[in-house]
Amino acid sequence: MKINVVKRVLEANDAVAASNRTLMSDAGVLCVNITSAPGSGKTTLLVRAIPALAEAQLASAVIVGDLQTTRDAERIGATGAPVTQINTEGGCHLSATQVTHALHGLDLAETAIVFIENVGNMVCPAGFDLGEHKRVAVLSTPEGDDKVAKYPTLFQPADAILLNKIDLAGPLDFDRRTFYDDLKAINSRSPMMELSARTGEGVDAWVDWLVAAHTQHAQTAGA
Amino acid sequence: MKINVVKRVLEANDAVAASNRTLMSDAGVLCVNITSAPGSGKTTLLVRAIPALAEAQLASAVIVGDLQTTRDAERIGATGAPVTQINTEGGCHLSATQVTHALHGLDLAETAIVFIENVGNMVCPAGFDLGEHKRVAVLSTPEGDDKVAKYPTLFQPADAILLNKIDLAGPLDFDRRTFYDDLKAINSRSPMMELSARTGEGVDAWVDWLVAAHTQHAQTAGA
Repeated sequence: MKINVVKRVLEANDAVAASNRTLMSDAGVLCVNITSAPGSGKTTLLVRAIPALAEAQLASAVIVGDLQTTRDAERIGATGAPVTQINTEGGCHLSATQVTHALHGLDLAETAIVFIENVGNMVCPAGFDLGEHKRVAVLSTPEGDDKVAKYPTLFQPADAILLNKIDLAGPLDFDRRTFYDDLKAINSRSPMMELSARTGEGVDAWVDWLVAAHTQHAQTAGA
Repeated sequence: MKINVVKRVLEANDAVAASNRTLMSDAGVLCVNITSAPGSGKTTLLVRAIPALAEAQLASAVIVGDLQTTRDAERIGATGAPVTQINTEGGCHLSATQVTHALHGLDLAETAIVFIENVGNMVCPAGFDLGEHKRVAVLSTPEGDDKVAKYPTLFQPADAILLNKIDLAGPLDFDRRTFYDDLKAINSRSPMMELSARTGEGVDAWVDWLVAAHTQHAQTAGA
């Protein structure tokens, strides 16, 4: 009984996610869903990327999920990009329906990339398709080199993996070998980028990946 | 309908939690449930505390919740304390029933404190009583000074709050003022301890708090 209820919730979510994806594809918009634990640096990664993407003539809009507060939305809003905040009021992930409502408030014709900053949580967001075209998983070095093995459902489906806060890898004895070995075992197809959103090191590669993903998406959508 | 199902699950959990609590109280055992995001240092805090508690003639046992892997259990097992690992296989929190099973494998007559290291997650474990007498919430400075406001359900019910990795507070511009103001607004009754499980700074206060909690608990249980 319990399993049936959960299954029905997931099936309903997937149907809504599919229609979100079609809506954005038809508008030539690339949607990127960013998942990580709390405090991995999702907001700072966006604050770094948005102005660089604007220089490449790619306008961003952001949907931010949080249990409480509008602090992330305020930080992103300072870049000038439109931001829609979803307060989940205790919910541990965003759902496709919440994203549908947020999309209605965005001008997709004026947008190249919609970022979804998911609720900070390494478990629950992994199971919910929101209608994204690309999913990004972020790990920061202070969280520990064992997290890929412990939370494989976050890293396995990711189209790109970002290792953030690499300026702290040395002081914290973060073992890259463990991290890379664990990642290779579950996801060897997706690019892995090391960076520090705080210092700016490696941010170029993250922006280049986004630009390339948008170019590829526009070609597919236009074909 | 969905709400009813969730309510029934929580009510069933609470009944099992109450019986776990009675079982441990009757044996004179203090149970401490430790909650935090992934990578906040729960395991290292236990590896530090267990030998110090042993010197104070307090024997520990540990129940570790993880989605996958037995890495935390292996690290704790090296201290000599009995460890029971629960793999939730994707579940985002421990439930009281899982703890009941784990308790059956422990010799409570030989145990002073049962620690429960919950699944690394700032959202879901907060809603599930496991039968603990004390709940501890851990935040580490690299996660950011905004996390109390963003995840109040973790910090509000905690009987003690640990701010870990304070050796990184300076380099990471962790704003203690924001952290303390936010905490005061939702939980001014519980002690807050700053420490670094890695360097050992402040660990004494954490051990002293555990010893005092055990003494108090033994007096209440014996009355």
